[in-house]
Amino acid sequence: VDHFNYGIQSKMFMQKYLVNTDYWNRTGGPIFFYTGNEGAIELFAQNTGFMFEIAPQFGAMVVFAEHRFYGSSIPFGKKGYTHKQYYQYQSSMQALADYAELITFMKQQYEHAEHSPVVVFGGSYGGMLAAWMRIKYPNIVQGAIAASAPVAQFTGLTPCNKFSEIVTSTFAKESKECVTIIRKSWAAIDSVAATAKGREWLSKEWKLCSPLVSKENVTALKDYLSDVWVNLAMADYPYMANFLAPLPAYPVMAVCQPMKLYRDAPQTILQEVFKGLSVYFNYTTTAKCLQYKDAMPTSLDDNGWDLQSCTEMVMPLCSDGKKDFFEPKPWDMKKFDEACYKRWAVHPEAKKMEMIYGGRNIPSASNIIFSNGLLDPWSSGGIVEDVNDSVLAVIIPEGAHHLDLRSSERADPQSVIEARTIHKENINKWISQYRRENPLPKKN
Amino acid sequence: VDHFNYGIQSKMFMQKYLVNTDYWNRTGGPIFFYTGNEGAIELFAQNTGFMFEIAPQFGAMVVFAEHRFYGSSIPFGKKGYTHKQYYQYQSSMQALADYAELITFMKQQYEHAEHSPVVVFGGSYGGMLAAWMRIKYPNIVQGAIAASAPVAQFTGLTPCNKFSEIVTSTFAKESKECVTIIRKSWAAIDSVAATAKGREWLSKEWKLCSPLVSKENVTALKDYLSDVWVNLAMADYPYMANFLAPLPAYPVMAVCQPMKLYRDAPQTILQEVFKGLSVYFNYTTTAKCLQYKDAMPTSLDDNGWDLQSCTEMVMPLCSDGKKDFFEPKPWDMKKFDEACYKRWAVHPEAKKMEMIYGGRNIPSASNIIFSNGLLDPWSSGGIVEDVNDSVLAVIIPEGAHHLDLRSSERADPQSVIEARTIHKENINKWISQYRRENPLPKKN
Repeated sequence: VDHFNYGIQSKMFMQKYLVNTDYWNRTGGPIFFYTGNEGAIELFAQNTGFMFEIAPQFGAMVVFAEHRFYGSSIPFGKKGYTHKQYYQYQSSMQALADYAELITFMKQQYEHAEHSPVVVFGGSYGGMLAAWMRIKYPNIVQGAIAASAPVAQFTGLTPCNKFSEIVTSTFAKESKECVTIIRKSWAAIDSVAATAKGREWLSKEWKLCSPLVSKENVTALKDYLSDVWVNLAMADYPYMANFLAPLPAYPVMAVCQPMKLYRDAPQTILQEVFKGLSVYFNYTTTAKCLQYKDAMPTSLDDNGWDLQSCTEMVMPLCSDGKKDFFEPKPWDMKKFDEACYKRWAVHPEAKKMEMIYGGRNIPSASNIIFSNGLLDPWSSGGIVEDVNDSVLAVIIPEGAHHLDLRSSERADPQSVIEARTIHKENINKWISQYRRENPLPKKN
Repeated sequence: VDHFNYGIQSKMFMQKYLVNTDYWNRTGGPIFFYTGNEGAIELFAQNTGFMFEIAPQFGAMVVFAEHRFYGSSIPFGKKGYTHKQYYQYQSSMQALADYAELITFMKQQYEHAEHSPVVVFGGSYGGMLAAWMRIKYPNIVQGAIAASAPVAQFTGLTPCNKFSEIVTSTFAKESKECVTIIRKSWAAIDSVAATAKGREWLSKEWKLCSPLVSKENVTALKDYLSDVWVNLAMADYPYMANFLAPLPAYPVMAVCQPMKLYRDAPQTILQEVFKGLSVYFNYTTTAKCLQYKDAMPTSLDDNGWDLQSCTEMVMPLCSDGKKDFFEPKPWDMKKFDEACYKRWAVHPEAKKMEMIYGGRNIPSASNIIFSNGLLDPWSSGGIVEDVNDSVLAVIIPEGAHHLDLRSSERADPQSVIEARTIHKENINKWISQYRRENPLPKKN
């Protein structure tokens, strides 16, 4: 469980991985390896159809590896998250070493696999891991497709408000009124929720599962709302999908469509917001009420990610309500630190990831594609300019969060089709380069 | 003390480093940073004159950083080596992260240093660390001079007998008789030491500080002798020096010169060996007797290195007595593992360093010079062929262990003079490249 110290060499953990060898060409066919991120690995296997789609033409083995402390791969089992002595081992460096070891192991286990070049894929945090895997273990992986990987979403590398601005601009593309209504909704909530009567009205009007009875409830509702707008921008795919939630095609458009009527009256604003909100929380029309208090209904593990964001994945986000439509909220490192210490007994190390991985400062790296969709707020911390001849930025103007890793769909915009072509061309290049440097043994 | 987990964030240790800013050009002059290896940092500062020699022409700051768990930089102080819960944190990955953090810190501490490119230097294990520093932290160091760095002296990467063969060939260059006498000496010791009388004779003849009374003593004597021949080959400099021991110029020649007379009689063989041995253990003529039982009288920390070799620095060495002049000894991993567990309660991980750093398989690395002297047995695990355009091998046929890092001397062979020129040319290239990518801020 600890690759970098020698105190507990015998402590192991079971790491889950999924393998598909249907298309694998055993004479040197590549291994496509997904570097799992914050959730059960099945979620990523289901949302990364691109790897399966191109596996046949490359004769590739497809592997999805689960990240430690997620899904079924939790060191120390049920105790894993109970105490720092266990969850201290949750770190990206350890996860990369897990993958390095797993790949090394698989190359021994599968006959002939020792001649197979490894290409890593990942989206979001998984994309960061894919890129970093190539940067830190070029001896083990030949290239990386890093989709929507915010490798520079760290202190001092990206302004904290950029993320909020992109969410806003993704909504602004659909309608100005929608943006205005959302921007005004925060004050509207405050003014309505200032009285018991108002809280009662809002609880009914929005069909809240738990009525608003305290200030904390109101804050929780606003936090929920923020997350909804962010998730919608991230999942703004051109077809029906179920990534962060079951959503219709072009969900931002679908949500904004009913939010047309802007009036100054707080109640009107909130009624309009609810029309849009319903598309999000009740697209399946099975929700009896709006559950704003629990974790977002995603298959991502928000609890586990909260831990990581409290140690090393410190991603400062902020909003001013002017250039963006969120409630103004500065980034408060001190408060963040206190909350982290209270919850996990750890202190966030804001500059750590820059020191370990370099952020955007990776001129000597090679064989990485950084793809980013411009609808996706995480593109703020991404690499959107070519770094050198083989570390390339691919921009997908109509793309949301790692759209390019998903299966092809008829509704796909041209830009994502082209992005996938670039991916394939580069994977081909990397494999040829590997083959030149590591010729297959001659048959006798 | 732990860069990769988050269990003991507040546990720090004092790391010693030496700084010389006499020649530093504060307008972007480089930082020359020695990545300390297994010993007190002063030893390396004293034996790496090259860095000081070239500092003025580069306007460089010179820094020597001590490796954790050596010299004065021992985490947990006196407890450091007492229990695995403390010394578990001794690892090359942690040491590299220490250096990354120290460099980051110094670039903030020294005004204007943020514009300074960093070039790392190291010899032997320090050379491995220098190369790996560039490989793992290219965002922090711009290039590496890795002198006599056996980055591939690991299981499966280099035949275990190559090391012994090079020691032998370094002696063979001086005289065939010398090699024959040493090769025959092991059996001679065994036959003489088989009787109490013989042991008494040998103890007197060789002026042993502790007389040979047991089988263990005889083994210890032979181990000592092996180490002597290895050290002589490593320290075969063309001038008087005191690196592993105070030695005359061309010490292998000096040792072999009196070992001329080969006769079959064991006593004659051992008398001849002692003539050579005296040059080694008593060059200063102050030794009253031959101390074969204690650690070798070097300033390297053999105890600390023993720990590292028992966790990750597993370097298989063996001899057959035919192609080399050592007592035949296979590499016995099982025995090695048992000894490690007994002494340190750890198990050696023989394939770890290959997985983490890649051994010789580093085609995507950049800006590293691997220099090796062919007299030096550690060249066996070195990189002696160019890897690519900017990862170059420099061979110094007349060089011993990292001769090129030492100060210039009149007796220097042409090959080391040329090696140093290549170092300087490449450092210049790396700095220019850095400056292109990171222009100095314009003065107003």
